[in-house]
Amino acid sequence: MNQSKYQQFKKQMAKVADLSNASAVLAWDQETYMPKKGGDFRAQQMATLQTMAHEVFVSEQTGQLIQEALKEDLTELERINLLLAQKDYVKKKKYPAAFVEEMANATASGFNFWHEARTKNDFSLFSPLLEKIVKLKREEAKILGYEAHPYDALMDEYESGLTVAKIDEIFDDVKKDLFPFLKQVLAKSKPRVDFIHRHFDKKKQWDFSEKMVRKMGYDFEGGRADFAPHPFCTTFGPGDVRITIRASENYYNEMFFAAIHEAGHGLYEQGLPMKEHYGLPMGSALSMAFHESQSRLWENNIFRSKAFWMGSFPMLQKDFPESLGDVSTEEFYKGVNLVEPSFIRVEADELTYHAHIYIRYLIEKSLIEGSIEVKDVPKIWNEKYEEYLGIRPANDAEGCLQDVHWSFGGIGYFPTYSLGSFYAAQLMAVMKKSIPTLEEEIHSGNFEKALKWLRENIHVHGRKFNSEEILTMVSGSGLKFSYFMDYARKKYGEIYGI
Amino acid sequence: MNQSKYQQFKKQMAKVADLSNASAVLAWDQETYMPKKGGDFRAQQMATLQTMAHEVFVSEQTGQLIQEALKEDLTELERINLLLAQKDYVKKKKYPAAFVEEMANATASGFNFWHEARTKNDFSLFSPLLEKIVKLKREEAKILGYEAHPYDALMDEYESGLTVAKIDEIFDDVKKDLFPFLKQVLAKSKPRVDFIHRHFDKKKQWDFSEKMVRKMGYDFEGGRADFAPHPFCTTFGPGDVRITIRASENYYNEMFFAAIHEAGHGLYEQGLPMKEHYGLPMGSALSMAFHESQSRLWENNIFRSKAFWMGSFPMLQKDFPESLGDVSTEEFYKGVNLVEPSFIRVEADELTYHAHIYIRYLIEKSLIEGSIEVKDVPKIWNEKYEEYLGIRPANDAEGCLQDVHWSFGGIGYFPTYSLGSFYAAQLMAVMKKSIPTLEEEIHSGNFEKALKWLRENIHVHGRKFNSEEILTMVSGSGLKFSYFMDYARKKYGEIYGI
Repeated sequence: MNQSKYQQFKKQMAKVADLSNASAVLAWDQETYMPKKGGDFRAQQMATLQTMAHEVFVSEQTGQLIQEALKEDLTELERINLLLAQKDYVKKKKYPAAFVEEMANATASGFNFWHEARTKNDFSLFSPLLEKIVKLKREEAKILGYEAHPYDALMDEYESGLTVAKIDEIFDDVKKDLFPFLKQVLAKSKPRVDFIHRHFDKKKQWDFSEKMVRKMGYDFEGGRADFAPHPFCTTFGPGDVRITIRASENYYNEMFFAAIHEAGHGLYEQGLPMKEHYGLPMGSALSMAFHESQSRLWENNIFRSKAFWMGSFPMLQKDFPESLGDVSTEEFYKGVNLVEPSFIRVEADELTYHAHIYIRYLIEKSLIEGSIEVKDVPKIWNEKYEEYLGIRPANDAEGCLQDVHWSFGGIGYFPTYSLGSFYAAQLMAVMKKSIPTLEEEIHSGNFEKALKWLRENIHVHGRKFNSEEILTMVSGSGLKFSYFMDYARKKYGEIYGI
Repeated sequence: MNQSKYQQFKKQMAKVADLSNASAVLAWDQETYMPKKGGDFRAQQMATLQTMAHEVFVSEQTGQLIQEALKEDLTELERINLLLAQKDYVKKKKYPAAFVEEMANATASGFNFWHEARTKNDFSLFSPLLEKIVKLKREEAKILGYEAHPYDALMDEYESGLTVAKIDEIFDDVKKDLFPFLKQVLAKSKPRVDFIHRHFDKKKQWDFSEKMVRKMGYDFEGGRADFAPHPFCTTFGPGDVRITIRASENYYNEMFFAAIHEAGHGLYEQGLPMKEHYGLPMGSALSMAFHESQSRLWENNIFRSKAFWMGSFPMLQKDFPESLGDVSTEEFYKGVNLVEPSFIRVEADELTYHAHIYIRYLIEKSLIEGSIEVKDVPKIWNEKYEEYLGIRPANDAEGCLQDVHWSFGGIGYFPTYSLGSFYAAQLMAVMKKSIPTLEEEIHSGNFEKALKWLRENIHVHGRKFNSEEILTMVSGSGLKFSYFMDYARKKYGEIYGI
């Protein structure tokens, strides 16, 4: 039987996806069920799969199939798959095999080095590796090419077309509008939060979280949730999108909001047309930044909203009569939205969060342009925390060693977290317009319309459009920071009486 | 840095192992945690990994590395690794790529077809696929080549050098000695077994099983146990050898003996010098048949022994006072060793078990030589059960559809199960001689010496010797069925007063 070139191209891409997805299964297992001694060979196994996925993708065969398939009679989506794959191909082709291997080797045991350094609170255990990684990332920027700044080339991996110029422009607004507003908020008296730190049974926490994750529309027949040291979302193929969760028995926020966040990522993955476009651009998320908009929209704009807690707090209160019996809905809502400078990014509130990101951005950019050295990171980190948040980490474990990203070479990634929040605010604003009853829906714990809107306006498109295009399609303009600022002013202005 | 050819060969073999081990992780996940809808793409993903492992192994590069490395200055073990890898290479090289793909495609969804047919108790849902698989296996026999019988070529996969002639010779003894003895046993009155089917809490069953698995020496830091529909043992690399378990709350034998059995496999894997010889013959089990000897030795010769239950039944009785309070140690020992014809192989006792295997062997051999057709299997199956066990399956679910093996092309595999028991009896006999206190050790639940003996005499050798060689080394001769017969007569003669 003669397959069309497009069919052969699809098969080749499926092979790449099979290898990448297998690597994702191994990574998931490493975080959830792998026995202690399994770690010795696991990093190598994942590196082999990733290297082979890369090799198959950048093979001459792939390039030829793309070129030949482009001459065939194609549907619109087939053409989009080919053109985007071609773009990826040209980019990935730039990497010399030796570089790929060196990077794979450097990052293979990155997690272990970072983890040990953090556990022992000793930056010197991680810095030699970080130096190597920074050196390689600078080399990568050269390999990929850039116009204005080497960091542009790295950010492009996580949000196509993102540049230092654009980020600086956005953070100019953040510094001009958000940080002064944050100061106002912090000058007000803190809401009551004692109850957040009372005792919450782990299983009961998950029961409530699971109920909400189901209500969001996350499909447990095509996914599952497992306990892991860190919450994340991972995809092994259509019909298998998993999340991980963790719980603290005396910090309510830890499980619930992270579970919603990861389920938000999961809904995006479950909503992609992945079955028809397995391993293809149309079956993939449009960017890491946009992915983050999905998780944050659910986590912050919906599940940290007053409407949601007005409707659902009584249910939670019933689950935890001893810990929440004396708490009013209003108090709870304000408590889970406490704004307060803190050291750990993943526990930060919606406002101070962007200071955390800005600090990482400044440090990464400086490392890549070579204006600072790895050995200076702890000092600069602490100074910046003092400057932007008015607090100074007591040690590197709660300072520059807190995040895993650098250990796997994820430099250029952090800025997408802020973009995710800003995109989310913009999306939420237009979604509210298009679903006039949205507040009531959220109040009654009904998320069908919200999910439908996201599915139809975002998920279904895969990588067909970029972030600017999709924002313009739904809201009439590309990213505008004012959406986030309006949201922040309204919500926190009310909570803090500003 | 210039790597020796041997080092490059090792790296190539590690790549093959990484792909195979990744496929094993995906298979394990499929049986344990994969959500329902994950099945759609999982079979394809595993097929991709297996096909790539095969491709890398049979590449010209591997062949050249072996040849060139053999000219280097080598240690004895390095030479053994190369020579055995060369043997495998020559064999695997025989498969045309088209055949490998066709087999992979045929078996990829084999499990689903088989599972549906068994669930619906409808052989016709499975027979078209089985016909295809039998056709492919006959082709495989031709590809591999054989002297006397095509089935020889297939059995060789699971026990090197095994032939129809050898199996016939062994089963002549089985028919001459074991089956008549079985008749004698069945003529006696049945021991009491009512208590085996009382209520046993799942968690408590595992608590006791786990305690014993730990006592055997299975390392939970390099392994774990998870619930799955079928018990199995799987290896992902040194330091990660897992078992799966299942439990019936009203059939005590189901979990305990299967857990011990799988842990027996696990101990073999954990005892192989896999870390030094990752992906190499010296780090691999010598054969499937020998693997089975390890699981059966633990399950039957040790954990179904009188010595073990005399020592440990009181502990079990304490865990289940309501179900076992009125049972004596002697009764329990006899109960778990009940000999009785039954339909399901995996639940069969130590004696009737070999009739189950003989029937499968006769059917497989006939299918491969073409003297029977797939459509005749149910009829012949039932007739043979009547002939050898005096019982007739009421349907194919408890007849010819009960085993998964054919669905993945595992034809030629069943005979190794009987060999495993016979090897185990021979090993146990010599182990007893070399550890004079073995009975007392087992009685007191101390298995250190037994494990040490197995480690030193068997596990450490990887694939250095074949089964005949290793049996000769430890017992002075190759397989002798009389060891099993002596064991059976002594044990069951005593239980049944013969």
